[in-house]
Amino acid sequence: MDECGPNPRRSMLTWLVGGSQVLGLVAVVLTGVWMGRYRGGFAWDGSAQEFNLHPLCMVLGLVFLQGDAILVYRVFRNESKKSVKLLHGTIHLLALIVSIVGIAAVFDFHRASQIPDMYSLHSWCGLATLVLFCAQWVLGLMFFLFPVASAWLRAVYLPLHVFCGVVLLVMAIGSCLLGMTEKLLFSIRTTYSTLPPEGVLANSLGVVLVCFGILLTFIITNEEYRRPPNPEELALSVHFKTLTEGAASPTP
Amino acid sequence: MDECGPNPRRSMLTWLVGGSQVLGLVAVVLTGVWMGRYRGGFAWDGSAQEFNLHPLCMVLGLVFLQGDAILVYRVFRNESKKSVKLLHGTIHLLALIVSIVGIAAVFDFHRASQIPDMYSLHSWCGLATLVLFCAQWVLGLMFFLFPVASAWLRAVYLPLHVFCGVVLLVMAIGSCLLGMTEKLLFSIRTTYSTLPPEGVLANSLGVVLVCFGILLTFIITNEEYRRPPNPEELALSVHFKTLTEGAASPTP
Repeated sequence: MDECGPNPRRSMLTWLVGGSQVLGLVAVVLTGVWMGRYRGGFAWDGSAQEFNLHPLCMVLGLVFLQGDAILVYRVFRNESKKSVKLLHGTIHLLALIVSIVGIAAVFDFHRASQIPDMYSLHSWCGLATLVLFCAQWVLGLMFFLFPVASAWLRAVYLPLHVFCGVVLLVMAIGSCLLGMTEKLLFSIRTTYSTLPPEGVLANSLGVVLVCFGILLTFIITNEEYRRPPNPEELALSVHFKTLTEGAASPTP
Repeated sequence: MDECGPNPRRSMLTWLVGGSQVLGLVAVVLTGVWMGRYRGGFAWDGSAQEFNLHPLCMVLGLVFLQGDAILVYRVFRNESKKSVKLLHGTIHLLALIVSIVGIAAVFDFHRASQIPDMYSLHSWCGLATLVLFCAQWVLGLMFFLFPVASAWLRAVYLPLHVFCGVVLLVMAIGSCLLGMTEKLLFSIRTTYSTLPPEGVLANSLGVVLVCFGILLTFIITNEEYRRPPNPEELALSVHFKTLTEGAASPTP
C-alpha cells in the first residue's frame, strides 16, 4: 500500500512539495517587497501605485495559486476524488479572480496615464495566458464537475487538460519574467547595469520563479508521485474498461 | 505493429513534426530578417552588427537545433537505438557550438562597446541555460554513449535526462523572449507602443517561439508518440529485467 509505513517516495514528495511552497511564498513576498519598498507601495487610484498591484496579483494568482491548484492532486492522496476536484476548481477560481484584479489594475493605470495597451510581447503573452486559463477553467468545469461530457470524452480530454495546465503555468511564469524585464528597463534603465539592490532583488525573484516552475513541473510530471486511485475509483475504472474494451482484459 | 499499414497516430505525428519544423524555421528566418533588415545586418568586428549574431545563433542553436535533437527519438523509429543516440548527441553538439558562437558575439560586442555583462535577468537565465545545457550534454555522453555508467545507473538517470532536456528547451525559449524584450526596449523604446513593423515582427517571432515550444513539448511528452523498442532492444530489456528482478516476471 502506498500510505502504510515509511515510504521513501512519499517522504521525497513531502520535501519537494514543501520546497515548492517555500519558493512560491518567497516569490510572492519578493514581489511585495519590490513593489512596496522600491516602487512606492499600493493604491487603487490610477497612479503608479495601482500598477504595483499588477505584478503582485499575477505572481500570487497566475503563478502561486495556479501551481497549488495543480498540486492538490499530488498532496491529497486519500481524500475522495470529488473533494480533490472541487478543491482544484476552487483554488483555480481564486487564482482567476486574483489575476483579473491584477489585469484590471494595469488597464486602469494605463487608462489614467494615457499609456497604450497591448503593444508589448509581455502583454501579448500575458493576455493569451489569461484567456487560455479562463477557457481551461470553463472546459474543466464542464467536463469534470458537471455531467456534460460522456465518460469516453472525459477520458480523451483528461491528458490534454493536464498538458494544458502545465503549459499555462509555464506561460504564466514566462509572462511574469517578461513583465519584470519591462518594469526594470522602464524604472532603473540607467542604473540597472550597476546591479543596484532593486535590480538584484528583481533578478533573484526571476530565478525563484524559474525554480518554482521547474520543481512544480517535476512533481506534476513524475509518474511516481501520481495519486493512486482509491478502491472505488479502481472498481469504476475496471468496470469502464470492461465496458469499452470487452471482458478479455479487465486488468492493465 | 506500429509501422504496418496506415496508422492515424503515426500520421498525426508526421503532421505535428512537420508543423514544428515550419514553426522552427519561421522563427530562425524572422530572427534573421529582424537583425538583417531592421538592425543593420551581421559582422564580426565588435560593432552592433556583431551583436546581431547573438539572437540569430541562440534561436538557431539553443532553440531550433536543441528541439530537433530531442525530436530524433520520435522521428527515427526503425533505425538502431545507437544510430539515433549518435544523431541526438551530434545535433546537440552542433546546437552547443552555434550557441557558444552566439554567446561569444555578445560578450565581444559588450567588450568593444564597454557595456557591462551579466546584470540583466535575461543574461542570468540565458547563461544558466547554456551552462546546464553543456552539463546535460557531457553527462548524456558519459552515461549513454561511453560505457562509464552501469545499466542500473543509466536506467535511473534516463528520466531525469529527458526531464532536464525539456526544461532546458523551455528555459532557452524563455531566455530568448527576455532578450527580445530587452532588445526592443533598448532599440525602439519610444515608438514600440505605436506597434511599428519591427515591433510587430519581433512580437510575432515571440509568439512563434512559444508555439514551437508548446508543439515540441506536446510531441515529446505524449506517450503515444514514444519510439517503440525494436526486437533486439526488447530482448535485451527483458534479459536485463530478468537479471535484476528475477525470472518471475519477464514481461511488463
